[in-house]
Amino acid sequence: MTNPMEFKLDTRLWSNKARNLNPYVPGEQPKHDNLCKLNTNENPFPPSAKVAEAISAALADQAQALRLYPAPESDDLRQALANAYQLDINQVFVGNGSDEVLALVFASFFMKERPLLAPDISYSFYPVYADTFGVELVNIPLREDFSIETNDYRQPCSGIIIANPNAPTGIILSLDAISKLANEHPNAVIVIDEAYIDFAKPESGEAVSAVSLINEHDNLLVTQTFSKSRSLAGLRVGMAFGNPSLIEALTRMKNSFNSYPLDRLAQAGALASVQDTAYFKQVCEQVIELREQLIEQLTSLGFDVLPSQANFVFARPAQGNASEVAQQLREQGIIVRYFSQPRIDEYLRITVGTAEQNQRLITALTELGA
Amino acid sequence: MTNPMEFKLDTRLWSNKARNLNPYVPGEQPKHDNLCKLNTNENPFPPSAKVAEAISAALADQAQALRLYPAPESDDLRQALANAYQLDINQVFVGNGSDEVLALVFASFFMKERPLLAPDISYSFYPVYADTFGVELVNIPLREDFSIETNDYRQPCSGIIIANPNAPTGIILSLDAISKLANEHPNAVIVIDEAYIDFAKPESGEAVSAVSLINEHDNLLVTQTFSKSRSLAGLRVGMAFGNPSLIEALTRMKNSFNSYPLDRLAQAGALASVQDTAYFKQVCEQVIELREQLIEQLTSLGFDVLPSQANFVFARPAQGNASEVAQQLREQGIIVRYFSQPRIDEYLRITVGTAEQNQRLITALTELGA
Repeated sequence: MTNPMEFKLDTRLWSNKARNLNPYVPGEQPKHDNLCKLNTNENPFPPSAKVAEAISAALADQAQALRLYPAPESDDLRQALANAYQLDINQVFVGNGSDEVLALVFASFFMKERPLLAPDISYSFYPVYADTFGVELVNIPLREDFSIETNDYRQPCSGIIIANPNAPTGIILSLDAISKLANEHPNAVIVIDEAYIDFAKPESGEAVSAVSLINEHDNLLVTQTFSKSRSLAGLRVGMAFGNPSLIEALTRMKNSFNSYPLDRLAQAGALASVQDTAYFKQVCEQVIELREQLIEQLTSLGFDVLPSQANFVFARPAQGNASEVAQQLREQGIIVRYFSQPRIDEYLRITVGTAEQNQRLITALTELGA
Repeated sequence: MTNPMEFKLDTRLWSNKARNLNPYVPGEQPKHDNLCKLNTNENPFPPSAKVAEAISAALADQAQALRLYPAPESDDLRQALANAYQLDINQVFVGNGSDEVLALVFASFFMKERPLLAPDISYSFYPVYADTFGVELVNIPLREDFSIETNDYRQPCSGIIIANPNAPTGIILSLDAISKLANEHPNAVIVIDEAYIDFAKPESGEAVSAVSLINEHDNLLVTQTFSKSRSLAGLRVGMAFGNPSLIEALTRMKNSFNSYPLDRLAQAGALASVQDTAYFKQVCEQVIELREQLIEQLTSLGFDVLPSQANFVFARPAQGNASEVAQQLREQGIIVRYFSQPRIDEYLRITVGTAEQNQRLITALTELGA
């Protein structure tokens, strides 16, 4: 019973939908401990200590015992998020990771006759969702420098989805540009996927998150996640912010798939994380500082590094091809992500690690002469 | 920011899919502590103490810290389930509660031209999924005594879904009948939703779960949940057992919606629960005993009680209508479930509670003269 049984795949009983899927392939989650894992953009720092405290308390609390169903709409967590982001609870939706939130977004807003627009280089789950929900996806090429030009999006559409900062480039789009998109497409839902926004460094203290715009634009939806800046990839919590009618659509869609996506411990842990603002800010600042150092070091080694505002950098080795460099790093126990895809196949996406991990990477690259 | 903002619902930006949904309405999850909550079929006993131990260990373990993504396919948990049920890991799928598993089942196997067949009285999420995935659902009436007659299912279909024991009746279908369905519909997927199967009392030691049949029928899929018999409704873990080609379809569908549905703590807790067989058996036996007592007491009060093999009973009060009785119980802090639906609107679905809770119910009903 320990080895997977050999079997001949038989799709006879599958729906056409199942047969035609192109599932998402997540970054590898290797089990070895001694690896320097810089491939899936996890935070190098642990979550707030308050998270484990809150989870332990929820575990111990009789009235909150695991035998009972969780709050189906995660009210306490949503209220805490509303407080933290100066919103109303009706402007907040939460789900089982931002991936689940995005799936519900596609079903709620993009299953329409007009196509969805997205950058050609972006989060690789978007085309998967488009397939899953039968949504026509039109890829808008990034400019030569990998930037997004809003004028390229002037065409009829059901919606636009943009990761901001974009992945895997790390490049950020300004709030002015986002406002422009929302204004120019009043009948489309503009989704800004801010998985990495908390690592963006505001210039002269200005806001970088489009959450600050949602009261101005009823067609703007912003998604975020606890997986990156809050160091809780293992807890599966994501959220969306938008006007109450958009949130209501997501809620109904959720309750037509799965009523209780967030377990009791995830709700308790995420709530504690939201409330520990000081720790959150400190971790983000540390990651930003480490990113800046990493960019400097990679640049010194001759890498072409895109101007990242995320917790990863997208960098082209001066010598040797990126695929080979990734392989050589792997042999030394350092895992980075390589995408075998036109336009970006000369780049590596490298998660910002701890100072020690980053140094280990730089030392290895120096020795490789990459 | 504490009171929900008033808003006028505007569905202009919604997909038709979103506009036409009829979301599932879960049983109420009241927040008051002193309620006698017999409305959502939770287990009256806590989960195995090993669950909290395992979760605490996962919380404390640096290599398993929450900052890292969980195992996307929950390999360790699936292997533990395979061991416990004498299956191969490739015959096991897990998801975020059996509700999520069922959603993926509908998308994988029932999105076809032929209709899906299900009993007219059954789990009320089935018609919701049918709506969500555009599946034509043909309701096959239960017989007068609320039993399922397999001959009624002799018609072309993409699949058949049956909750066994059925909800809200609690009545069980024999394995012979299930084998017959699987044999008579070789091109349809037969889904047996065994949310409550562990509370079924085998006659003369024979198996009651259709898991024992999956090696015989490649078109048989069995779903189960940790929410009932394992007292983990708050942890959101469900599973499906079937031949590897069916499991592969579910896996691909999952990876087209959400790659990491089970967080680290849910995986760790569920694994510990599976491994504590002794506690699991003991709790199931206790609930079965309490159910038998409750049936006896309700019958003595003149209730017509269906022959339940689940952790709830479906009972018709001798006097007064069921809706009124439910309301009167609520005024005394006892919550049971009432379905305002043809054929069953004279019944109450009452979860088996602890001995104390059941006594509180019986006392209240006696005083009401219901």
